[in-house]
Amino acid sequence: MITHGAFTCEPWALRSTRLDLDVLAQAESLFALSNGHLGWRGNLDEGEPHGLPGSYLSGVYESHPLPYAEAGYGFPESGQTVVNITNGKVIRLLVDDEAFDVRYGRLRDHEQALDFRAGVLSRRAEWESPDGSAVRVTSVRLVSLTQRAIAAICYEVTPLDEPLRVVVQSELVANEPLPKPGGDPRIAAVLDAPLVGEENSAGDARSVLVHCTRRSGLRVAVAMDHLVDGPPGTHVVAESSADLGRVTVTASLAAGETLRLVKFVAHSWSGSRSRPAVRDEAEAALAGARDTGWEGLLSAQRSYLDEFWSRADVQVDGDPEIQQAVRFGLFHMLQATARAEGRGIPAKGLTGRGYDGHVFWDSEAFVLPVLTYLMPDAVAHALRWRHTTLPMATTRAAQLGLGGAAFPWRTIHGEECSGYWPAGTAAFHVNAAISDAVIRYLDVTGDDAFEADAGMELLVETARLWRSLGHHDADGAFRIDGVTGPDEYSAVADNNVYTNLMAQQNLLAAARAAERHSDRAGRLGVGEEEMAGWRNAARAMSLPYDHRLGVHQQSEGFTSHQRWDFGATRPEQYPLMLHFPYFDLYRKQVVKQADLVLALHRRGDAFSPEEKARDFAYYEQITVRDSSLSACTQAVVAAEVGHLDLAYDYLAEAALMDLDDVEHNTRNGLHIASLVGAWIALVDGFAGLRQRAGVLSFAPRLPSGLTRLSFTVSMLGRRLTVEMNQKSATYTLLDGAPLRIRHHGRPGKLSVGTPLSRPIPATHPSKEPTQPPGRRPIRRASS
Amino acid sequence: MITHGAFTCEPWALRSTRLDLDVLAQAESLFALSNGHLGWRGNLDEGEPHGLPGSYLSGVYESHPLPYAEAGYGFPESGQTVVNITNGKVIRLLVDDEAFDVRYGRLRDHEQALDFRAGVLSRRAEWESPDGSAVRVTSVRLVSLTQRAIAAICYEVTPLDEPLRVVVQSELVANEPLPKPGGDPRIAAVLDAPLVGEENSAGDARSVLVHCTRRSGLRVAVAMDHLVDGPPGTHVVAESSADLGRVTVTASLAAGETLRLVKFVAHSWSGSRSRPAVRDEAEAALAGARDTGWEGLLSAQRSYLDEFWSRADVQVDGDPEIQQAVRFGLFHMLQATARAEGRGIPAKGLTGRGYDGHVFWDSEAFVLPVLTYLMPDAVAHALRWRHTTLPMATTRAAQLGLGGAAFPWRTIHGEECSGYWPAGTAAFHVNAAISDAVIRYLDVTGDDAFEADAGMELLVETARLWRSLGHHDADGAFRIDGVTGPDEYSAVADNNVYTNLMAQQNLLAAARAAERHSDRAGRLGVGEEEMAGWRNAARAMSLPYDHRLGVHQQSEGFTSHQRWDFGATRPEQYPLMLHFPYFDLYRKQVVKQADLVLALHRRGDAFSPEEKARDFAYYEQITVRDSSLSACTQAVVAAEVGHLDLAYDYLAEAALMDLDDVEHNTRNGLHIASLVGAWIALVDGFAGLRQRAGVLSFAPRLPSGLTRLSFTVSMLGRRLTVEMNQKSATYTLLDGAPLRIRHHGRPGKLSVGTPLSRPIPATHPSKEPTQPPGRRPIRRASS
Repeated sequence: MITHGAFTCEPWALRSTRLDLDVLAQAESLFALSNGHLGWRGNLDEGEPHGLPGSYLSGVYESHPLPYAEAGYGFPESGQTVVNITNGKVIRLLVDDEAFDVRYGRLRDHEQALDFRAGVLSRRAEWESPDGSAVRVTSVRLVSLTQRAIAAICYEVTPLDEPLRVVVQSELVANEPLPKPGGDPRIAAVLDAPLVGEENSAGDARSVLVHCTRRSGLRVAVAMDHLVDGPPGTHVVAESSADLGRVTVTASLAAGETLRLVKFVAHSWSGSRSRPAVRDEAEAALAGARDTGWEGLLSAQRSYLDEFWSRADVQVDGDPEIQQAVRFGLFHMLQATARAEGRGIPAKGLTGRGYDGHVFWDSEAFVLPVLTYLMPDAVAHALRWRHTTLPMATTRAAQLGLGGAAFPWRTIHGEECSGYWPAGTAAFHVNAAISDAVIRYLDVTGDDAFEADAGMELLVETARLWRSLGHHDADGAFRIDGVTGPDEYSAVADNNVYTNLMAQQNLLAAARAAERHSDRAGRLGVGEEEMAGWRNAARAMSLPYDHRLGVHQQSEGFTSHQRWDFGATRPEQYPLMLHFPYFDLYRKQVVKQADLVLALHRRGDAFSPEEKARDFAYYEQITVRDSSLSACTQAVVAAEVGHLDLAYDYLAEAALMDLDDVEHNTRNGLHIASLVGAWIALVDGFAGLRQRAGVLSFAPRLPSGLTRLSFTVSMLGRRLTVEMNQKSATYTLLDGAPLRIRHHGRPGKLSVGTPLSRPIPATHPSKEPTQPPGRRPIRRASS
Repeated sequence: MITHGAFTCEPWALRSTRLDLDVLAQAESLFALSNGHLGWRGNLDEGEPHGLPGSYLSGVYESHPLPYAEAGYGFPESGQTVVNITNGKVIRLLVDDEAFDVRYGRLRDHEQALDFRAGVLSRRAEWESPDGSAVRVTSVRLVSLTQRAIAAICYEVTPLDEPLRVVVQSELVANEPLPKPGGDPRIAAVLDAPLVGEENSAGDARSVLVHCTRRSGLRVAVAMDHLVDGPPGTHVVAESSADLGRVTVTASLAAGETLRLVKFVAHSWSGSRSRPAVRDEAEAALAGARDTGWEGLLSAQRSYLDEFWSRADVQVDGDPEIQQAVRFGLFHMLQATARAEGRGIPAKGLTGRGYDGHVFWDSEAFVLPVLTYLMPDAVAHALRWRHTTLPMATTRAAQLGLGGAAFPWRTIHGEECSGYWPAGTAAFHVNAAISDAVIRYLDVTGDDAFEADAGMELLVETARLWRSLGHHDADGAFRIDGVTGPDEYSAVADNNVYTNLMAQQNLLAAARAAERHSDRAGRLGVGEEEMAGWRNAARAMSLPYDHRLGVHQQSEGFTSHQRWDFGATRPEQYPLMLHFPYFDLYRKQVVKQADLVLALHRRGDAFSPEEKARDFAYYEQITVRDSSLSACTQAVVAAEVGHLDLAYDYLAEAALMDLDDVEHNTRNGLHIASLVGAWIALVDGFAGLRQRAGVLSFAPRLPSGLTRLSFTVSMLGRRLTVEMNQKSATYTLLDGAPLRIRHHGRPGKLSVGTPLSRPIPATHPSKEPTQPPGRRPIRRASS
């Protein structure tokens, strides 16, 4: 996309300078606005043409039966799919007697821009109707970061050459027809018109629609109101029916005269409250927005973002494309999480219906590790959501015959929704990702209240899961057999190193927490015996190693398997899972996404530098990156073992995953984890950020393509800015009490007002590892 | 059932002396008649009450979509399910104005008997209607072994106490309503009324119905004709509609006077021929049957069975229950296979719709090994059927990225129908079972024509599969990774010993066959290089062994897994797969059915006696027999390692699987493989029959409960009778040229007229192994 000629490279915005319908769906995802609670795809104001219309409220889903050709015990019976709620974006325009539609007439000019500092999507179009009437249409759209129920649009239309009569229809549209998704037609049928109208009303320039989802029984209210500024004679009519709220504005405009419409749209939903309560909540939010006004919303939006960027901005000199991409990624990370309060962070945020809107492990494994240093409050919200689902996770564990909690592989509400048991039942590492996020959050914030309310219970229940899942063998080693690790081209294997190391950390953290807070531990039923069991299991954790090759085995026996025949695999046969059966992928040495290499990153303390170099080189040869959750991790470890230019290429792939539509599915929504992966690649990769026991360590080293990198992280309530170039790194503590850090292994102490500068040692990397044919990271023309 | 008071123990029949509606569905399975082409469940003549109405033609199925919550590459999209065809069994009776129905009025007497020598199901009922009219109804029913399209019923009704008017309605019923199966309601819907009427006619005492299955497009014609013998004034009317053919006979009978009806029912079907052709074929068969007449059909049936029993009978002295059960099993084996010509042998024969009527590996792995020694021609038919499906199997292999042929895990027509990929994609051992059956058949018959037409190609294409499925590792060992062995409580594991040993035999047999017939090999594209590849793979085959425990690993790493917590498993939690998730069963040491122990049986040459004893003892401790395909194998190996009483218990469990309804699913059809398992347990077990390179060896030893065992096997066109008691065994060659055998390892030579007697050496068994708590074989009260 960004390599697409319509998109410009600039530091603080994503801009397309013309409209290309071939990439319309992708652009809708890239231009999506969200605050983590409400999401609007970047659909054109007039609704059509569209790639995929989308308006989402986090947590609003429809249920559907999960079908099986041969069912088994414990297979989930019910799935959950994000619902396209009542669409408040639509503003249709009639110019004289011609509908404004970019597919007809002539589009003289069209620009869309997502501004990362203003937090708005703006659009400007000059259009000539089939009969030659020319108008300029501009709109500025926001989803408010300060009033989470609110979106607003400022819409203007101006005749360019001659007086024109215009009719503007501003709408709420429920149950809008959607392109059919692939897959099971029965599920598509369930989602065909998921909203049942319960109430509608209209008056003045207002309308409200209340609906309830058919099976999941969730009630959604969407209300709109308008400020209309037009010439005398401008008429406004409001009307409503079950699935439509419409305010029609009619005006006769002189050439150069502008009709201006500000549309406020308010949303509320609930699974338990009454129709009047849900309706009133939307109308109350609407009143609040009207009171704030358009300019007020705009300025609050900018203030919120100023504050965000002051904590989160990353400056990259030497590569404008990466500079733009990392800010784009951080902006969407903010949008996916800022106001998610009490809900999970879906893999696609609220930018599309890819993966059915489900939350996966990448929330805790990729997004929260970044968010912890930039917006720790959002991390607490996300983990508190997991905590609210604990009853479902303990029920699920019991159903599987296990202790503790088994969090779902994919879900919206909290129940397991995976219809593929090697993932849904066996990918237990999601539990380790949750505990890892808890540990990091507590380490960075020291948030005792969170630990007491939620954190400790999450650590304890996940530790219980591991203890019951594994066993000590005849040698006393603790084995965790038959689980699926991160690499989805392996499944149900023994002693996955990543899983085992993450479980080890989980068990020890739970034991330490229980030790520190023995009263709370007691209330959770944790005694000395159980803690000893956790410590013993952690101490004796199995980590399969191939002594002949001198590398760790992703899981036991992995390195004995046949290597995938990469030479015989044609480029169009990627991603492999669409062209080869699971069983064959599972039994061969081929890696979809970093798994053992993710262990090298997340549990680097468990490997020597030499092991890291050998393991990385080995797994590079067989990793195909058919997942977006790989490049950033490979970037980090490549940087650590000294392959800086390779790391740079992986950084670019992660950063441009959606901007370049690398996996050809950006149309269904953005890859939030890959977008934050750009930050991970830069900060964990080139700055070498690691954290252990409350101390941040850095090992800065820039690739030849970058001249300077600067970023800020929060630690124990203080902000620390790191600035590095090819020669040295400077650490500046912006506020708070002194802080200890490490630079390339050497300790240092930072105080406010006393920056610390340190030289960067030279690297002596071994020979750069190779990838399977055709699977090198994409090398950009510019690099 | 046989422990059920209504069933008697007798040597040549299965008889119930009263009607118990609680076990009606089970009795319908036990009393099923079949010739392998046509099957009639033992439903009551009057159609109701019923457990499960069933009339089947081998190969007649309906297609239905296979649903997946998350589909994957190579998952079959279409399933096949056996269809209940037009039911020609129904003969309803009206006595004065009361319908004969055993649920009303009073059933004074009711007996049903399946005669293993006559090949008929007879029934006698004395019934008093609610208003007190008493009649005797008798019927004798057969499915002809000599005219495969034909079934016939001789039906008689006699007033007992007073003159009565009776109306007999003899019917053809299509699309009869069935009890809903469990599982997916959408699939049930497809099968609700699968037959579309194409033609119907009636006249005289005849009727014919022609239907076509809705999706699979198979055309089925069923025709009936009657001979009516009643007093003067007896009226006969025939009529038909789309789903009903009916011949109504009205008669006024004096007390003691009998109305007799002989009903001939003829069947034909085709997937390609025209409606008239299929109809005419049924009517032609009907003409043939009428010409033969009822007595002719009866006497031909008896002659056929006399010949069968002369080749196949087994005499067991000391245990009448086992005597009855083994003949019951052989009778049903005959029924499942006798005239299956050109079709597979379903797991349930044609006795019910269990497993959707599918053919599995147990056809080749359990049924054919017995059939080879008793009815080798039927084996050739069954294997020729597999050969006709070779194009589908090579297509499937190519789809999976493999060479050669991948035969389906479950099918009716030949396409893979398993909707569970760890079975449907990974249970490759079905291919080894097919090649094993080919090898044994060729060894026993020397049938060169079969080898040329089909056998060699089956060996070559399965060998190609193994060669492409496995690989040589860094040590040169040949590994077959990621496959599912016979034990369904493990899946997708590396180097399953059973699979690897059977593949080894397959590879070597293919190489030897290609060597012997180099011209034919050349036509199949087999050259020296390929043969060398097969031999090298076979020679280097991996066989994982646990040196610490001194036992083979069912598959690599198996003995490191946690042992299932048998102590915490309650009796009602068996079968385990209904109460625990697959993933947990797969990753623990718990065995559903003989797997490594099946290797000890089928590839006993690969193990030392000490290894067999240790392996057997080890796997006994963790084998739960949640499958009917286990007890007979455990019996064989228990006998071989000297645990004769344990073997005896396993024999009983296999033999009584259906008679005692051990697995509570006999209602859905008989377990044909388990029924022949009684023969396997007796002959391979207590007589120790093994075969290698054309020589039969025996190692006879009887358990204390049996005084004598005698049986006959065919070898190279000759019949050999073996008779053994506690002290000695006598081998008698009944015909043909001299034959070499082995008795407890010592060679002997048999000639006609010169029986060979040999003493039986004493056994010195080790301590009897233990089974998981509650999973000992069922010890009968009588033993």
